[in-house]
Amino acid sequence: MNKGNLLYAQSGGVTAVINATACAVIEACRRHRIRAYAARNGIIGALREELIDLAREDRAAIQALRHTPGGAFGSCRFKLKSLEQDRARYERLIEVFRAHEIRYFLYNGGNDSADTSLKIAQIAHVLGYPLHVIGVPKTVDNDLPVTDTCPGFGSVAKYTAVSVLEASLDVASMCESSTKVFVMEVMGRHAGWIAAAAGLAGKRADDPPHIILFPEVPFDEAAFLARVRATVERVGYCTVVVSEGLKNAQGQFLAEAGTRDAFGHTQLGGVGPLIAQLVKSKLGYKYHWAVPDYLQRSARHLASKVDALQAYAVGQAAVEYALAGRNAVMPVIRRISNKPFKWKIEPAPLTKIANIEKKLPKNFIAGDGFGITAAARTYFEPLIRGEDTPPYDATTGLPKYATLKRVLVRKKLPAYAIADK
Amino acid sequence: MNKGNLLYAQSGGVTAVINATACAVIEACRRHRIRAYAARNGIIGALREELIDLAREDRAAIQALRHTPGGAFGSCRFKLKSLEQDRARYERLIEVFRAHEIRYFLYNGGNDSADTSLKIAQIAHVLGYPLHVIGVPKTVDNDLPVTDTCPGFGSVAKYTAVSVLEASLDVASMCESSTKVFVMEVMGRHAGWIAAAAGLAGKRADDPPHIILFPEVPFDEAAFLARVRATVERVGYCTVVVSEGLKNAQGQFLAEAGTRDAFGHTQLGGVGPLIAQLVKSKLGYKYHWAVPDYLQRSARHLASKVDALQAYAVGQAAVEYALAGRNAVMPVIRRISNKPFKWKIEPAPLTKIANIEKKLPKNFIAGDGFGITAAARTYFEPLIRGEDTPPYDATTGLPKYATLKRVLVRKKLPAYAIADK
Repeated sequence: MNKGNLLYAQSGGVTAVINATACAVIEACRRHRIRAYAARNGIIGALREELIDLAREDRAAIQALRHTPGGAFGSCRFKLKSLEQDRARYERLIEVFRAHEIRYFLYNGGNDSADTSLKIAQIAHVLGYPLHVIGVPKTVDNDLPVTDTCPGFGSVAKYTAVSVLEASLDVASMCESSTKVFVMEVMGRHAGWIAAAAGLAGKRADDPPHIILFPEVPFDEAAFLARVRATVERVGYCTVVVSEGLKNAQGQFLAEAGTRDAFGHTQLGGVGPLIAQLVKSKLGYKYHWAVPDYLQRSARHLASKVDALQAYAVGQAAVEYALAGRNAVMPVIRRISNKPFKWKIEPAPLTKIANIEKKLPKNFIAGDGFGITAAARTYFEPLIRGEDTPPYDATTGLPKYATLKRVLVRKKLPAYAIADK
Repeated sequence: MNKGNLLYAQSGGVTAVINATACAVIEACRRHRIRAYAARNGIIGALREELIDLAREDRAAIQALRHTPGGAFGSCRFKLKSLEQDRARYERLIEVFRAHEIRYFLYNGGNDSADTSLKIAQIAHVLGYPLHVIGVPKTVDNDLPVTDTCPGFGSVAKYTAVSVLEASLDVASMCESSTKVFVMEVMGRHAGWIAAAAGLAGKRADDPPHIILFPEVPFDEAAFLARVRATVERVGYCTVVVSEGLKNAQGQFLAEAGTRDAFGHTQLGGVGPLIAQLVKSKLGYKYHWAVPDYLQRSARHLASKVDALQAYAVGQAAVEYALAGRNAVMPVIRRISNKPFKWKIEPAPLTKIANIEKKLPKNFIAGDGFGITAAARTYFEPLIRGEDTPPYDATTGLPKYATLKRVLVRKKLPAYAIADK
């Protein structure tokens, strides 16, 4: 078995279960007596040589990570460019790894992070530095290829379906004399995975949600308004789920906010109120809208058990793969069967994953563009199965989430400034 | 013991636990062998003689009401005016009661409903119709006087505190390179009860929420922005909870939407995004905002156990009071002690409750106007204690909420139109 230390880093938007992956990584390292560090605030911390000494954390705190949302060691939105453009930064990473005898680097993120992982493996090879790089999947967007699903997605899917169900019971109670149209905006910049999962809230005709607006289906105002009116007239109310990524026929986001994040992605928000106001102005119905925003991806209190188990499993596998000498791979989830639902973890090369977005299959969207199909249900339903309720404090009534010490390892290199963050 | 039937009606905005009260009412009636009806869509159904025959509902469905959010029989926003102005409607109600031998009327709502209950008791007396009217407390606004708290409030308080905690863990993970200010808008038109409860999310200095904006404290833009900046500089990020009822120094709602509901109340919404955009434009921080809207008051999956127990207890007491011959009273919650937390139900005259709003005590708001005091914590904390997780379906992964038949009793009177609804 290889000698050396392991560095784990979280990347991109965090989830309700990314810390379950972290927990698995740390517990596996402890079993294998591998010294493990976590980068503070993701790759930024690796560049700055800000390494959290995981040996300093209590066993109970590490166990509690398994049910704690957010990114316990800090994550970041910071994309390394190509090896040519960002050569100095890649070399700096290897320098930090060399200084701390990091032989295993586990990078827990989405598409961009898989790409970065691949490049780090390449530069290590070029520089002759012995390193095993494992990409570890995580993203509520569910858009990584190869893997059946991405840890984090099942829990946001469960939160969304349960929230639509509950809020619709509320609206249904009041629709005779109050709100007739309820609009809920969900995340999903480029693909309607989360919007589609909302469809799990109802199974029979006229169950909510009555309308789902997907990024994949250009917004047809007339068809939408006709459907809202028909639903209100037949059912009494109408629940609409709209993806933040909804586009018009010209391919523009309906709610273009004009700001961009560190990756150059447009920052969205506000299509929910926009759709609600459209309904009011064109049909005159009383409306309410909700934008759960970060609540949906941090709702560990309502995590899917399947998702929590898969998040733990990929972390554990990542350590096993690294110690077994694998490099530039990602532990992915393979669905073996639907009935009964069975899955396993297997390695996939990062070259098949980096920078490739998995789109929502066309056959998941109903012919009218406003709902999901039976095929979608077959795929999504197992992912939100089971509950994994965190322990609660009997006095405060709040979940008992982990508190870490986050003690940094003493630096061995000169200070490093990240210029154009 | 009196003979006759019982009519139960839900009123106003529904909650995560109003059906627990309904469950208690129905179960108590069954024990006492009293025939019970529920008005379809609240008082509107009573006027229209749309009475749901509760004898037709299965025992299991009634039991499931205890953990089902929304208003199972339908609620409404429909306010009866004074006895002089709305005499015909009050007389119609008595006519319906007489036709169906309703001797007990249980009206489950807030301030307005307590007032209506009182007037119905008065008109019955005037008309010589033997009727026992019991107001049953319910409102997420927590603004009924006399009672220690209102069923429905504890659960929205728990949802809000847990959501603030979870979303803040998310923001804290990412603040180094992403969102620095997170704004969450909560309900509470006239009083900051829900906003204050959000303060339970954190206990130590610099725990989130860092800033609470109460309807009781006129918005001071300069002080707010200074506090946001200082918090971001010291903590790295800032979580802001803002009540929908936030007002400026002139007493105007910051987010005046311009529409009004059936009670003449202004319909609010949107102060969350407004505050977030203010932070962006004045301080330049990247922001996110969330407006959970109906999600917060329907989140039965995260109900407070104390709240669910109290909701059941007031329903049960309401039936006992009615059968014991009481009239124009409300079962209220009296807090006996904080350590250990003990409470009991006792009757209070509706005259002490109708149309009186309980304000958030001044000593619950910190001196700087941006947080809560120890006195507030002592009051709020027991209300969010304990979990009362609904059963989940192992296949769908969704809570198993009640499905009722809602069979209407055959009408005995001529059709009745509600003109100016």
